[in-house]
Amino acid sequence: MTDLLPDPFFSGPGLDRADALRADEAAIRNLAAGPAARQLKWHEGLPELSNDGRLVWVTAANPQLFLGFEGDIPCFSTIEEVTPDARAAFPRMALLDGNDAPLFAAALSLSRWHSRHRFCANSGHPTVIVRGGWSRRCADCGAEHYPRVDPVVIMLAEHDGRLLLGRQPQYPPGRYSALAGFVEVGENVEAAVARELFEEAGVRATDIRYVASQPWPFPSSLMIGCRASAEGPELKIDTNELEDARWFDREEVLAALDEQCGAPFLPPPKTAIARTLLERWVAA
Amino acid sequence: MTDLLPDPFFSGPGLDRADALRADEAAIRNLAAGPAARQLKWHEGLPELSNDGRLVWVTAANPQLFLGFEGDIPCFSTIEEVTPDARAAFPRMALLDGNDAPLFAAALSLSRWHSRHRFCANSGHPTVIVRGGWSRRCADCGAEHYPRVDPVVIMLAEHDGRLLLGRQPQYPPGRYSALAGFVEVGENVEAAVARELFEEAGVRATDIRYVASQPWPFPSSLMIGCRASAEGPELKIDTNELEDARWFDREEVLAALDEQCGAPFLPPPKTAIARTLLERWVAA
Repeated sequence: MTDLLPDPFFSGPGLDRADALRADEAAIRNLAAGPAARQLKWHEGLPELSNDGRLVWVTAANPQLFLGFEGDIPCFSTIEEVTPDARAAFPRMALLDGNDAPLFAAALSLSRWHSRHRFCANSGHPTVIVRGGWSRRCADCGAEHYPRVDPVVIMLAEHDGRLLLGRQPQYPPGRYSALAGFVEVGENVEAAVARELFEEAGVRATDIRYVASQPWPFPSSLMIGCRASAEGPELKIDTNELEDARWFDREEVLAALDEQCGAPFLPPPKTAIARTLLERWVAA
Repeated sequence: MTDLLPDPFFSGPGLDRADALRADEAAIRNLAAGPAARQLKWHEGLPELSNDGRLVWVTAANPQLFLGFEGDIPCFSTIEEVTPDARAAFPRMALLDGNDAPLFAAALSLSRWHSRHRFCANSGHPTVIVRGGWSRRCADCGAEHYPRVDPVVIMLAEHDGRLLLGRQPQYPPGRYSALAGFVEVGENVEAAVARELFEEAGVRATDIRYVASQPWPFPSSLMIGCRASAEGPELKIDTNELEDARWFDREEVLAALDEQCGAPFLPPPKTAIARTLLERWVAA
C-alpha cells in the first residue's frame, strides 16, 4: 500500500530541462530575447509565491540562468542572494503548490550556488557562466565547475516495533525527526547510513533499505531516505549532533502524525522527507 | 537470491572515520606525531598496491589528511595530483583487494578534491585545511568548503524481457553498459533516472526502483544504481552522449557476463556497479 502514498515534497518532473540546448549559447540567447521568455520573481531571498502558492513569473529582463521549458515557454532566473536557512523559508514553503516545488527547489539551489561560486576553486580567478547557467568556467585555467548536489542519507532505524528519532538543538520545541548525515567520499548509501546511526546514536544497523528520495534546497542536498534494523535498543547519543534521541512505538508516531493534542512529539513538516518516511512506516 | 550476490566494488565499511575527532586539531596532530601513525604510499597518481592487491603504508612523514583508524592505527594521506581518469586506473584497480577498495576510493577522491580546491569559490582567496582534511576554510571570508560527492544515477531500463544498454565513444571496442547521468539540483533519484533515459535514449520510464549504490572515485561520484520499466522499445539516441544503444535479452547478457567467445558485447568491468546491476538482473 505504501506505493499509493504521496511522493516526498519537492519531487516530480519539474520543467523540461532541455539539456541538449545548454551547449548552444546562441540558441539560449535567442530564447531569452524572444517575447515568450519569462523569469522567476524573487522576494526576500526566495522565489515569490502567489496567494494560491504558485511561482510568479515576469518578463525576462535579466535572464541569467536557463531553467528549461514549461510547454513552449522558456523559463529563466536571475542569480540572487538567497535565503540559506530552511527555518526562515518554512512559512513560505507551507504555501507552495507541490507542482511548482521541484522548480522552486532547482531555482533556489542553482541561484545560491552561483552567488557563492563566482571564483575558481582551482585557480582563484573569476569564473563566467556557461551552459545556460548549468556550469561556470574559469577564464584563467579553463576548469569547469558544476552546481553541487550533496547526497545526504536520512533514515529510520527500527527495533522491536519502535522507531529511533532524534532532536537537534535548533529544532522547534517538541520536534523529533529522522537522523541524517552527509554521504562522504568513499562511501555508498548503506555505509553512510550505518556510519551515521553508529556515530550519532551508537546503533549498529543491519538490513538497510532505500525508501525514497527528495531534493532539499537548503542549500542543495539530495536526501536519500532509508530504513534499517537496529541490532539492539541501547543508545549512545552524540550530544554534539543531537540534543536527544528516543524510540517511539507505532501509536506514538500515529498520534504525532495526526497532530493530536498530547502527542509525544511534534513531527517533521510536510515538506521534509522525514515526514514521508514516517507516513510510509505507519502505513506499512 | 539477489541479496546473496556480492555488493558493488568500492562499497563496504572502510576505516573507522572517527568523525568526532575531526574538530580536535590538537588530537589529530598528536596522532600524526605518534609512532603508530602511517600514511598511504602513492605511485603515479594512485594509491600504490602490493603484489597481492593491498594498499601500501609507510611511516607518516607528511600526514595532511586524516583518513581514520584501522584498529588502533591512525591512517593518513598526503595530497597528490591524482589520476583523474578511470581508464588509466583500470589495470591497477583490477588487482585491488575488495577489502581495501573503500579506502582506496576515499583517499583518491579526497586527495584529488584538495589538489583542485585550494581557493575559495566564494572569495577567490586561498583556503587552508581544517577538520583533519575533511574541509577547507577561507582565511578571508570564513566560508567552509566540504569535499564534493556528486550523485549519479545509473540504470537498467527493461522492456519485454530485454535490457537497454548503451555505448559511449570512449569505451573499449564492443563494450555496452548501463546508461547514467548526474543528478541535478531540484531532482530526486527517480526524476533523474526518468530524465536521463528520455534524454539519452528517448525512453519513457515507469516503476523506477533503487537497486544498490557505489562510490566511484573518478573523481568523486556516488553511483546510485536503479532499474526501470520502459513504456516501449522505440529508441531515439542522443548521439552527443551515446555512440549506440540497443536492447539485449537474457541469453545475450549471460553470454557477455560469462565472457563467452562470440558474446554480443563486452560487459562493464567488475569494479563498476553497472556489472553488479547486470549480475543481479540475470540472477533475479
